Amino acid sequence: MTDDRRDREVPVAGGGLLHRRALLMAGAITGGGLATSVFAAGRSPPPASMLQPGAALSGYGARSRSGAAIQRIVPELPFPGTGSSRTPLQLLEGTITPNGLHFERHHNGVPQIDPATHELLVHGLVRQPLLFRYEDLLRYPRESRVLFLECSGNSGALGAPEPVQASAGQLNGLVSGAEWTGVRLSRLLGEAGLTGEAAWVQAEGADAAGMVRSIPLSICLDDAMVALFQNGEPLRPEQGFPMRLLLPGIEGNASVKWLRRLKVMAAPAFSREETSKYTDLLPDGKAEQFSLRMGVKSIILNPSYGLDLHGAGYQEISGLAWSGRGSIRKVEVSADGGATWGEAALGGPVLPKALTRFRMPWRWNGAPATLMSRATDETGAVQPLRAAWLAQSGASKGYHSNVVQSWRVQADGKIAHVYA
Amino acid sequence: MTDDRRDREVPVAGGGLLHRRALLMAGAITGGGLATSVFAAGRSPPPASMLQPGAALSGYGARSRSGAAIQRIVPELPFPGTGSSRTPLQLLEGTITPNGLHFERHHNGVPQIDPATHELLVHGLVRQPLLFRYEDLLRYPRESRVLFLECSGNSGALGAPEPVQASAGQLNGLVSGAEWTGVRLSRLLGEAGLTGEAAWVQAEGADAAGMVRSIPLSICLDDAMVALFQNGEPLRPEQGFPMRLLLPGIEGNASVKWLRRLKVMAAPAFSREETSKYTDLLPDGKAEQFSLRMGVKSIILNPSYGLDLHGAGYQEISGLAWSGRGSIRKVEVSADGGATWGEAALGGPVLPKALTRFRMPWRWNGAPATLMSRATDETGAVQPLRAAWLAQSGASKGYHSNVVQSWRVQADGKIAHVYA
Repeated sequence: MTDDRRDREVPVAGGGLLHRRALLMAGAITGGGLATSVFAAGRSPPPASMLQPGAALSGYGARSRSGAAIQRIVPELPFPGTGSSRTPLQLLEGTITPNGLHFERHHNGVPQIDPATHELLVHGLVRQPLLFRYEDLLRYPRESRVLFLECSGNSGALGAPEPVQASAGQLNGLVSGAEWTGVRLSRLLGEAGLTGEAAWVQAEGADAAGMVRSIPLSICLDDAMVALFQNGEPLRPEQGFPMRLLLPGIEGNASVKWLRRLKVMAAPAFSREETSKYTDLLPDGKAEQFSLRMGVKSIILNPSYGLDLHGAGYQEISGLAWSGRGSIRKVEVSADGGATWGEAALGGPVLPKALTRFRMPWRWNGAPATLMSRATDETGAVQPLRAAWLAQSGASKGYHSNVVQSWRVQADGKIAHVYA
Repeated sequence: MTDDRRDREVPVAGGGLLHRRALLMAGAITGGGLATSVFAAGRSPPPASMLQPGAALSGYGARSRSGAAIQRIVPELPFPGTGSSRTPLQLLEGTITPNGLHFERHHNGVPQIDPATHELLVHGLVRQPLLFRYEDLLRYPRESRVLFLECSGNSGALGAPEPVQASAGQLNGLVSGAEWTGVRLSRLLGEAGLTGEAAWVQAEGADAAGMVRSIPLSICLDDAMVALFQNGEPLRPEQGFPMRLLLPGIEGNASVKWLRRLKVMAAPAFSREETSKYTDLLPDGKAEQFSLRMGVKSIILNPSYGLDLHGAGYQEISGLAWSGRGSIRKVEVSADGGATWGEAALGGPVLPKALTRFRMPWRWNGAPATLMSRATDETGAVQPLRAAWLAQSGASKGYHSNVVQSWRVQADGKIAHVYA
């Protein structure tokens, strides 16, 4: 390490965390120890790939052999269409999840729907019930927004008495990010004309679960959309093709897929999915219902369980942060189990209700270290420590976990999930 | 049409263009003529998709049957790996192009490269030549940016004497948008240490074309990156796996794929790709070289050739705009062949050197109309009309066309490509 570099690298917290401006410095942040110095440059024979013509152009393409190893995490299930698959977050970068890797949650499998016969009915407390065909909706004004979608059961394993040894995606992969395009729900409701008693909207899917959720009208008239496209292309079947509800910042379950009916009501439906499930059991035995908005949260993805470090030295700590209440204001990182914290760099653009990538420069000295991240959103809400969350919520709460998570880096570079 | 709506819809230009705030109005912008009024709501039998369990969770998923019909436009070629495939822009939405649909341009096919043996050599006018393995680069600080990439030959057909009747993607589909993640090139060059004579960098690919381009050092030290990920996942083979150069705002050809060498030089290499090809032939017979930065440009995608209108009434005009010089400041749309123009709404976030989606509300009266779009970027540069561009550049110029394009909507709703 040169003196020059040491001068510019400002520690901001214990355990080797550096000021985020180190990310912007040109030159030898890594200490030159990663690349290999060479003296007979340019003398190596050309690689095999240069000796014969490559493969043809293609209509849709495929991933590289190693890239194709990146798959959603699909559990063994008694009914293979009922459950969830998770995004392998720790193997991905940036903030956009490819459509093939966006998490899934189905209650009775993925229906195949012909868009030519699918219809969306808007009825109930409206002046004029309306039927929208897919091709009708394609003529409406559209908007595109980059948004996160998170299952309210995500990170539920953090409530287990002992830390589950599993990858970041296995623990937290029920969240993904995409650019969604669709029609504002307020426009469709406005066209049907709400009556004075209208206060809730019951959304129903065309799947074999007949998935039903009740959503407060205020959310429906805010920024909710009926989504038709994801990351540029039409929705995929597992994401609700031909159309789904998309409620920014709200637990994923309420963004009903394969949307076929919106019934405007004066009260919630109290369906199975909002009584037996998707409620938050409190310590006193009561349950919170319609706790729909997702909290402020962050997770460190690199390094993390399964992505062991290969020796001391420079290492970028990075991960994702998001909040159902708006934009991320800051993410703090600790390398000493929460004793001291430094502020990470946020990758732009920092968008409301979207995934934000944070990055923190770190010079690991090779000693054991405990990494944690803690996000704050634009409302000032701060991600809680696990102990505080449990004290308030009780260990029985399986939904809406947004606790600070901890990775223990051992001296041999292996990484364990710990409760710090 | 209700009087109420007519009051709120403010025309901003001829031919039925409306003020963009109409996009934000709730209610019956479409005049209620698109949805079907129903009276026996809720009585229809459940669709077949509700009567049996759906398909299983999956590791990577697939598109719907109709979605899978959306393919890159691959021409018939004597050597199927040498040429280009185009993004079917008119069938997509938003600003992110799925990786499987990002345009391709190869000069001798797509090599399959094992990342474990691939090396990037930085040599030439440096204090210390360095070899970077793929796994080395994965330890460097990364950044993620949403960027457009455009082949300098894109829209070259606009120079033809008669308007080619083809889709927006066939004419202009050598542009795509993605979130790229990689390592700043300035960091790698800084680690090797530039000597005083350094002024250009020659980039070489590991494909069978041995693709070589010379890039001014100023571009390399600005915002250039060595990209490793695209839309979250590792690069695909056709986009340069395991690593490519990515030069924001610069003609795509210079973002050398399968990057294996960066040679720092005092002068350009004057390779085949910057002498015989990728130069701009001027009317006086001279050629501009290294005219690398892409101009300000926009195209209307919907409606466009092949996407005929089905009857008069409300129609959203939308398309994409971008500039190699920075952000888009505004996009103007004309429905009367350029006689009058109205300003479109820009979808946020409007990012520098990235695709920006514009939308313009339009109430088509059913009479023939000529649609045009014209973008202005943050530097004040305005997309030129075709006649002006030809007068300045000459008909022989096949690269860097950014002329205003025109679609003629006929009374029967069919759409033709015209020169207006």
